[in-house]
Formats: sequence, C-alpha cells, structure tokens
Amino acid sequence: MRIVFDVGGSVLVPDDPDVDFIGKIAYELIKISEDHEVAVVVGGGRVARKYIRAAKSFSPNETFKDYIGIHITRANAMLLIAALGEKAYPFVIQDFRKAWEVIQLKKIPIMGGTHPGHTTDAVSALLAEYLQADLLVVVTNVDGVYDSDPRKNPNARKLDRITVDQLVEIAMESESRAGGSGVVDALAAKFIQRGRIKTYIVGKEDAYHLFDVVRGKHNGTVVEP
Amino acid sequence: MRIVFDVGGSVLVPDDPDVDFIGKIAYELIKISEDHEVAVVVGGGRVARKYIRAAKSFSPNETFKDYIGIHITRANAMLLIAALGEKAYPFVIQDFRKAWEVIQLKKIPIMGGTHPGHTTDAVSALLAEYLQADLLVVVTNVDGVYDSDPRKNPNARKLDRITVDQLVEIAMESESRAGGSGVVDALAAKFIQRGRIKTYIVGKEDAYHLFDVVRGKHNGTVVEP
Amino acid sequence: MRIVFDVGGSVLVPDDPDVDFIGKIAYELIKISEDHEVAVVVGGGRVARKYIRAAKSFSPNETFKDYIGIHITRANAMLLIAALGEKAYPFVIQDFRKAWEVIQLKKIPIMGGTHPGHTTDAVSALLAEYLQADLLVVVTNVDGVYDSDPRKNPNARKLDRITVDQLVEIAMESESRAGGSGVVDALAAKFIQRGRIKTYIVGKEDAYHLFDVVRGKHNGTVVEP
Amino acid sequence: MRIVFDVGGSVLVPDDPDVDFIGKIAYELIKISEDHEVAVVVGGGRVARKYIRAAKSFSPNETFKDYIGIHITRANAMLLIAALGEKAYPFVIQDFRKAWEVIQLKKIPIMGGTHPGHTTDAVSALLAEYLQADLLVVVTNVDGVYDSDPRKNPNARKLDRITVDQLVEIAMESESRAGGSGVVDALAAKFIQRGRIKTYIVGKEDAYHLFDVVRGKHNGTVVEP
Amino acid sequence: MRIVFDVGGSVLVPDDPDVDFIGKIAYELIKISEDHEVAVVVGGGRVARKYIRAAKSFSPNETFKDYIGIHITRANAMLLIAALGEKAYPFVIQDFRKAWEVIQLKKIPIMGGTHPGHTTDAVSALLAEYLQADLLVVVTNVDGVYDSDPRKNPNARKLDRITVDQLVEIAMESESRAGGSGVVDALAAKFIQRGRIKTYIVGKEDAYHLFDVVRGKHNGTVVEP
Amino acid sequence: MRIVFDVGGSVLVPDDPDVDFIGKIAYELIKISEDHEVAVVVGGGRVARKYIRAAKSFSPNETFKDYIGIHITRANAMLLIAALGEKAYPFVIQDFRKAWEVIQLKKIPIMGGTHPGHTTDAVSALLAEYLQADLLVVVTNVDGVYDSDPRKNPNARKLDRITVDQLVEIAMESESRAGGSGVVDALAAKFIQRGRIKTYIVGKEDAYHLFDVVRGKHNGTVVEP
Repeated sequence: MRIVFDVGGSVLVPDDPDVDFIGKIAYELIKISEDHEVAVVVGGGRVARKYIRAAKSFSPNETFKDYIGIHITRANAMLLIAALGEKAYPFVIQDFRKAWEVIQLKKIPIMGGTHPGHTTDAVSALLAEYLQADLLVVVTNVDGVYDSDPRKNPNARKLDRITVDQLVEIAMESESRAGGSGVVDALAAKFIQRGRIKTYIVGKEDAYHLFDVVRGKHNGTVVEP
Repeated sequence: MRIVFDVGGSVLVPDDPDVDFIGKIAYELIKISEDHEVAVVVGGGRVARKYIRAAKSFSPNETFKDYIGIHITRANAMLLIAALGEKAYPFVIQDFRKAWEVIQLKKIPIMGGTHPGHTTDAVSALLAEYLQADLLVVVTNVDGVYDSDPRKNPNARKLDRITVDQLVEIAMESESRAGGSGVVDALAAKFIQRGRIKTYIVGKEDAYHLFDVVRGKHNGTVVEP
Repeated sequence: MRIVFDVGGSVLVPDDPDVDFIGKIAYELIKISEDHEVAVVVGGGRVARKYIRAAKSFSPNETFKDYIGIHITRANAMLLIAALGEKAYPFVIQDFRKAWEVIQLKKIPIMGGTHPGHTTDAVSALLAEYLQADLLVVVTNVDGVYDSDPRKNPNARKLDRITVDQLVEIAMESESRAGGSGVVDALAAKFIQRGRIKTYIVGKEDAYHLFDVVRGKHNGTVVEP
Repeated sequence: MRIVFDVGGSVLVPDDPDVDFIGKIAYELIKISEDHEVAVVVGGGRVARKYIRAAKSFSPNETFKDYIGIHITRANAMLLIAALGEKAYPFVIQDFRKAWEVIQLKKIPIMGGTHPGHTTDAVSALLAEYLQADLLVVVTNVDGVYDSDPRKNPNARKLDRITVDQLVEIAMESESRAGGSGVVDALAAKFIQRGRIKTYIVGKEDAYHLFDVVRGKHNGTVVEP
Repeated sequence: MRIVFDVGGSVLVPDDPDVDFIGKIAYELIKISEDHEVAVVVGGGRVARKYIRAAKSFSPNETFKDYIGIHITRANAMLLIAALGEKAYPFVIQDFRKAWEVIQLKKIPIMGGTHPGHTTDAVSALLAEYLQADLLVVVTNVDGVYDSDPRKNPNARKLDRITVDQLVEIAMESESRAGGSGVVDALAAKFIQRGRIKTYIVGKEDAYHLFDVVRGKHNGTVVEP
Repeated sequence: MRIVFDVGGSVLVPDDPDVDFIGKIAYELIKISEDHEVAVVVGGGRVARKYIRAAKSFSPNETFKDYIGIHITRANAMLLIAALGEKAYPFVIQDFRKAWEVIQLKKIPIMGGTHPGHTTDAVSALLAEYLQADLLVVVTNVDGVYDSDPRKNPNARKLDRITVDQLVEIAMESESRAGGSGVVDALAAKFIQRGRIKTYIVGKEDAYHLFDVVRGKHNGTVVEP
C-alpha cells in the first residue's frame, strides 16, 4: 500500500515538542515502511498559531501569515526527520513530485506547508491524490469526526463511518483560515472527495499505534471513497 | 492604486493566440501602469483544457493535470510579456513575494498558475490579498456575474453590484475543477471574501478599454468588499 | 544499451495532442526500458510555432521566442510523462546531469527545450553525447533523410545509410531558426558529428514500433558515426 | 552609513514573540533607514533551543541541529518582516549577495541563519564584512561586554570600550555550539577582527532606542576596529 | 545605447589574472556605464583550456568539458566583478532575463558560460539579441578579423569593415569546439547575423580604451548588420 | 564504513591539474567505494590563491574572496568527477543533505566550498559530522601533523597519534584566512572535536594508496576522537 499521513502540528508540538510521541510515531512509521510506501505531511500547530497571532498585530494580510506558518511547519517536520534517522529524506519536501522521487529511493518524504491558501490538511489530500495513495491517515487532536463539536456539546457522537460526500458537508460548515484547528477544512475535504481517497481520521491515542491503524484497528472515523 | 488583473486564458488564447486583443490589452496596461501599480495573472484557457483532456486519457490524477495546466498558463503569460515589452518583467513570476519585488522595480509582474489545487482565479485573489491591492479586475468570457447561467437561461439577469458574501454564495454552486470555465470558482471567491478585496468582473469587450474599467466605467459586475 | 529519443513536437501534438500515438509510444518506451536505459527529448511542434508566431507580432527578438517555445516543449513533455505513468520521472528535466541521475533511479527522464539558441534536436544530440549513449533515435514528420526535399520534389530519394559528415553537409543547407521544421538542424548535426553518435532518423509510422526500431528494423535513415 | 544589525532571537521571541518590542524596533529601523542603508540578521533564541533540545533526543548530530535552528531563525525573521511592512524585502534572505541587491532596491534585507557551523552572530559579522558596513550593532540579552559573566559574578564590570583583538580574546573562552547563548561567539569575533568592523554591543533596553544607538548614544560596549 | 561586451578569457587571465588590465577595463566600463546600459560576458581562456585538457584524459565527452569550462568562466567573471565594485551585480548572471533585470537596477550584469554546446562568444551574441543591444563589442586576442590567419600568414590583411553575412562565411571555416581560440565561432556569427547586431571586434590594445571604442575609435573590425 | 575524504586543492592541482594523481586517487576511491560509503570534499589550492590574490588588488573584502575561491574549488571538483566517471554524482554538491542523498544512490558525492567563512577543511569536518562518518581522511601537502612547522624547522617531529583536543590546540595557533595553507584550520579542528570524528591526516605520497590508508596503513597522523 501507499499511505499518506497527515500529522497535526499540535499533536507533535502541543506546546513544546512532545519528544516521546515523536519518537513513538517515528518508530511506528519505520515499522509500517517495511511493508508500505509512506509519506508524511506535518502541520504547524500551536507554535505556528503563536507566530501568526504576533504577525496579525502588524498586518491583516492572511497570505503573509500563511508564509509564516509554513516556516513553522518545516521546523516541526525537521523534528520528525530527526526521529526517523536515515529512514527519512533529510530535507523538508516542498513539491509533490519530489515526494514521489523520495519514495522511489525507498525513503520517507516529510512535507510541511507548501503554498499560501492551503492548510497542511489540504496539502496531505493533494499529496495523496498525486501519489494515488491507497490510504490517507489524518492524525488530529480530536479522535474522529463527530456529529457536532465535542468540545462544546457533551452529547456529540463520534461517527464510525462516513462517505467523502458527508465529509465535505461537515467540513463546509467551518471555513479555512490560516492556523485553524479542528477536523479537516473544507478545501482538504473537497480534495479527498475529488480524489476518492480512503481516509482514516484518528486521535493522538490511536497514533501511538499507527501500525495497527493502517490495518484498520482504531477508534477514529473511516471516510469511504 | 495597486491593481491586480486576472485575465482568463480563453480570453487571451481563444483557440489561437488573439494577437489583436493581446496587443490592445498590453497597451491599456501600460497606460494604467503610468499612474498605478499593476500585476497580472493569466489563465490557461482552451489550450490548457486540450492538454488536460489528453492527460485524462492516461490518468485520473487531478493534481497531475493541474501541473500540466500550469505549463500552459506560463506560455500564455509569455505572450503578454512579449506584448508589454520592457514594461513587463521578463520571467513568468511564480511567487507572490517576487511579484511584490517586481512592483518595486516599477515593472509589471505577470504570473500564471502556481500550485496544484488552485485555479488562476484563486492565484489572482491571493495575490491581491498579499499585495493588499486596492482593486482586483477579473477579465473573463462572460461579461459579469448573472443570477443564472446566461448560456443556458435566456432570461438570466446580469448583477451590477453584489457583495463579497454574495459572490461566495454564487460561486459555491459550481465546484473547482482543473481547467473549469465560468465565473470565479468558490475558492477564489472565498479568498476575495477573506481579503475583503474590491473586485470588478468584466467581459472581453470591456477589456479592450481597461483604462476606463479601472476608473469604474464598465458593463460588468462590481463586487463590494 | 543507452538510448536517447528525440520526438518531434508535431509528431506528438500535430494540432491537438495525438492521444493514441502518445499512448502507443509510451507503451513501446516502457517495453524498451526493460532492457535498455532510455531518455527522451520532446519538441514544441505546431503549438510552439503558433505561440512563436504570435510573439513575432510584438518583437523580432528570436531569443525571447526561444523561451516561449521552451514552455510549450515542457507542456508536450508532460503529456508523455502522463502516459508513461510511474516509469517516467514526474518533472520535465532541464539539465543533462539530472537526466543522468534519473537513469540511475531506473526511471525515464523526459526533457524539453533547455536554452535559447538550441532546438530540441540539438538538445537531444547534446544529451546523447553527455550520456555517451549508444544510439540516438530521431522521430520526425519526414520518414528519413532524403537527397532533396520530398515535400517539393516528387523524385526525392530516401537515403538508407549516410555518415555523420554527410548529415552535417545536408543539414548545413537549412539554417537553425526558432520553431523550424524538417530534418535535424545544422547545430544538432554538428553535435552528432563531434560526439560520433550512431543515429536513426525515422518517421511517425516507424515510431509506432519503436521497440523494433531500436533493433534496427525501420524504414528510416541510419547515420553512421 | 551602512549598518548591519544582529538581533538575538531571545530578544525578539523571549518565550512568545515580544510584539511590543518587535513593533518598536521596526519603527526605529524604518527611521534609521531614512538616512542609512540597513540590513538585519535575526537569531533563533529560545524557540530554536527548544527544537534543538528535542532533536538532541534523537541524534547527537550538531550539524543537523544547526539546520533545525535555521528554520526557526527564518520564522523569527518573518515577524520582523511583518512589522517592517513595505520597507522590508518580503523573503528571508539567505545569501549575502542578495542582501546587497535588496539594499540597492532601497529596502531592508532580513536574514536568519545561513549554513551549519555558523551562529547568526557569525552571519552578521560576515554580512558586515561583505557589505563593507560602517557599523555592526549587536542586540543581545546582556547589555554589553563584561570582564566576567554578570549572571554569575555580581562584581562583573561592563567594559565601555574594547578593541577587536580584546573581543576575540574574550570570546575565545566560550566555544561555539548550536543554540549557545551569551556575547558573540569566537568565530563571529574573529570575523569582526579580520574585517576590522566597528561594533556596538547593546542590551534590549538600548534597542528600544536604536535610532540613538547608531549615533553612539547607548550603555553598551564599543568595539574599536 | 545598450552595449554588450564579450571579453575573451585569455585577455583577462592570459596565464595568471592580468590585474592591471582587469582594473583598467573596469575603469572604462564604469565610465561607459554613466551614459550607456552595459552588460559583459567573460570567457574561460587559458585556465579553462588547462582544465578541459585535464578532463580529456578521463573522458572524450565534450558536453562534460563544457561544464568544466563554465566553472572557470565564472571564476574569471568574479575577478571583473571585484574590480567593478558596487557598480557590478555581485553574482555571476546565468540567465539572459536576469541580465535584463540587473540593467533595470542600474548595475552591470557579468555573465560567464551558460550551457554546454555554446561558447561565451555565442552567449554574448544571444545576450545582445535578447537585450536588443545597439552594439556588441568583442574583445579578443587578435586585433580584428583578417582575410587569413595572421598567426600563420604574414601577409594576412585586417578587414576594417565586413557584413554579418561575411562574418558567418569567415567563421564557418573554423568549427565550434569547447575552449577553442580565435575569432568568434560559427554559431556566434550566426546569432549575430540573425539578430542583425552591429559588432566591433577589437584586440586587447584597443580594450584599454573601451570608452573610445564604443564611440567608434578603434583599430579592429566593424561588422555591419 | 562511511568515510569522508578532504583532498587539498594544491594536491590535485599543484600548478596545473596533476592528471596522473587525479586518475590514481579516483581509482583508489572507486576501489574503496566497493566496500564503503564514500564522500569527497575538494579544496581550491594554488589556482584559488592566484584568483584570490588578484581580487585582493581590488577589494579587501575577505567574504568576497571566499566566493571566488568557492568557484575554483568547484572546477577542481569537476576534474575528480571526470576521473570517477559514472561512479561520481555529476554535479558538484553544495549541501550536506544532498551528499547524503547521493550516498543512498550508491554514488560518490563530490563537494567543493559551500559558504564564506569556511575553508574546505571545515566543510569536510561538518560533512563528516553530518553524515556521522566513521572516518575523515585529510589529504594535504604536508605528510602529517608536526610539533612545529617542518618547512621552517628541520628538527620538527611528526606526531603519530594525537587527540582531537590536541588537534584543536595545534590548529588554534594558525588563524583561518581565505585560501590559507597548512594543516587543518582552527574551525575545522573544532568541528572535528565537537563531532568526535576519527581522523587521519596524510600526505600526497600516502594518497596514492588510499585503499591502504583507510585500513590504517599510512605514514600520517591519527587523530583520536
């Protein structure tokens, strides 16, 4: 299988870098890469949001803030590269075609953000589409897709299985903004839909066992193409 | 004023390059650039669609097709550069920050597509946001925004003035696909909305008089921020 | 064997992209690449000439027109990349040394034009020289080298076998111009001569059976080093 | 005058970005740039050290850690770019020659780290040498050069005026390590010495009045060439 | 006027760098640049030939040797950049379009070789064509164009004035090879012809007075477009 | 083993390129690369010093001179690439991470200088650190480390075995200057120290038998980590 992982920045670097988690996820990715082709996109998380908030004091320019966020995603990506050692390609990849090349080298390409106007969720969906991946695994702060916001509604119910069309519907309600949090944004959802990409959306707890996740064992949400 | 122009590929190159139109629009842009800062984004149009259709025979990969389209937008951009002579920066610009630099050089930056997952409409909206432009002028095949598709409904009525929020609503109905035609796509509309960018959407007839258009004299649609 | 193919743009994209031919030639190249190292240079053809003609209305600058042509060669190259799927390197290669690297990756590098003042024929001859290729196969609109122009002289006779020195003599009569048509230009011929590169010059009909061509079965002209 | 500023990362981003300070220093730099040519190098500070410490869990490789630190210096540099608005060049500059070019454009180049094995102090000294700057202003956490470490020795005495040779002597005692803190490192000191660059070393308090600092009004240390 | 200078490597660096000559020609170029737009292409000369000869022991590959020669032209170009100080753009320019940009910055672009298969004579002719220069000045070891080789034939007569067509004829007799010496090569001559570029071909003695040369005062050959 | 070689420019190109030596060392490197991972850094030597001395007539700017030296190191590197044929990666590598990638391709990366302020000795130490090499072999004009300068003191004694700390002490006495000669400079020594890299420092005679050198058979100095 060819698998793309979309790892939220706030999962890797909640406040300070979560060294234990990064080490564990690297271990799982290496194990998975023995049988599968693997690529990873890393987000900006809380550090990115701090920098973006600071930039906001000086300018309302969202595109500029996207550029700042991209720098932080690359620093986060470097941490994962460090943990993967010789298994990772040592540059942060910035082009989907280069990611493809790295896979031919039997190495794991690690990407961050690529371009203003795209979250790293959108990047991972485009990458999955470009690589014609068999599976996209989204690792986020929430442990799946809910029928309403679980942080506000205690009765929110996690959805085990939805379609890509439902994913788009759900995502459309919350708009894409630089450094936004939550489930995948609408643009990412649409790329998943147009590419008909099988997707698992899982929480950090599941991510400790990524090797199981790719075999379908997890408590998150399955998005059917 | 700082003005971004978004010129549809099928306006510049309907089938073959429309040399008369390209020469005329270049003349107008030079005239405008005497008083204003000007940047232009050029689309792929019919040639792009031909190439994308051919690629579709070989692969369903939309991201790959976006890359092909980007190559054609650059060839189209080169035609406008030829017509602008020493007033244009002689490379096709691929980064918003470089476009800013070209403006500092008192030259006109010409961009094409930049990244998969974005139409050139979206690129022009992001560029306008990044440059904090005072005005975005969209030159397209249709002569403004209608309340329904004028090619299907003979009673479709052109809207003289809409808000950015209405633009998003209208655009949401037609989804972004590589090489799509029509009014600006949903993603572009959202960037116009988030950047609160004043926008004129005009047809090719108006584009022959761009100098007037930027002074508000045109038969297209005004999108209010 | 290490083989460089020089595929004329008007063969691949006579007017619109010739999807059947592109698919067929990709199939042959993949078959050949199982036993041989393969690299391909793609020309601009009719689309390039249309764009160059349009640019000529604005400027007599041949070097500028070369840049436009290069953009179209890249779009053409992308079509072949699409057809080759995972066997092709997904970028259009712009440097001979990168082409060498791609061959080490067991992939097929696809190039277009590289620099003003060079046709893609010259690029393919330089690439063959740089790679110290065993064979250069030129696929063009004419089905070989004739003793006079077959489009003008009905008694023109196809030459089965010539030397590189004869090739230079023949080519010297028609001068290199941006977007020119016909047999290889004088500069390309000189590179073939200085590199002493064995070359087959074949027509489109033969190109449907490229696998046979590389084994010497074709109706074109053999250029002996 | 041509002036290079070396602003420590922990001055700009002590923990979170110090928005007030960044805004103030940007204001001063713009004022200074009206009469002088200005370039700025920004360090990594505490955020860089956090990331480097995390990487250290995975690898002892100092060169790799330098690369991580460089990413953070660029994010820090972007904050200063945001605050400088149209006065700053919008890319983080990575080559001294490009910095020179930006100065010709009448803009302020902002650099971060450039290469492993160099702190941003060394980068700023090399930049000052390359630009043949009249003055290098180092803004750091300590308010000048002391005869012993003021954080350990309460009787440490600030030195008003030293020579470049003395600076080297003092700096030689503390060795260059990725993400090290304190006064300029030995390598930076040697570049200041070989370039015979007049240097002011000042604390954050002085930096609020950079306009005065460049006129010699400050409580830091003057390093005489 | 816009003037391109083509300065032979063996003129600048006969064996060791000719510091006096480099200083003198830089002085003249600065003087000329006060009234004219100036660009310079520098050749490889004797050092390049030494390196190419060494490479020849290892490989017959001419294209590879061209790459080596290009490295030396860049080192030579750097010497001229050093001598021109702040008047020169500090990078060796590798693209004609960038050369154009540098001219907009009121600086002098210095180029070396650009691509295999082209001498620096050809580069300067293409640059002159691209920039639509009013004049190309070729500074070479011989003091003009002769009716036969002056190093072999004591009765060789210098030609005061020839046409571009005659230049091509003369040049066609000596073929382009990497690191070749003498008057401009055939390919360069053809570019001069197709671009109809007015050209002066002068010797080193004349080059000490380049300021006069551009006003037509020299003992070399005038090539009429 | 992973081994980095640091070959002094004046060893490869004493005055003219030493073709015999380059051929011999290439032969040894290929033999070594059958069992080990190999990377090479090449210095500038006498040619670099000639160019740097010439530049010194025009400017005291050491950083600028470093850039000139870097160009010559690349030309020297190209000679070694020519001699290594298909075993070497055909570009001069400029980034440590790319060197790593080339090793994954089972090819030998050849580097020259990378950045002002670093000699190629320092580059090779950083590369060894980055690659976590098992051994660094320094090939220089002197046949090991002496207790005093053997060119001045006839009683100077070669040291068979020293520690990295002693190496730093010895190197600290001679300061880093662009194009300097002698044993490794202080900065390089410090990188060897911080990376705890086992190092052999050998002369040209030993370099004819590099295959033996890497097995510990040589007359140079062993630097113990």
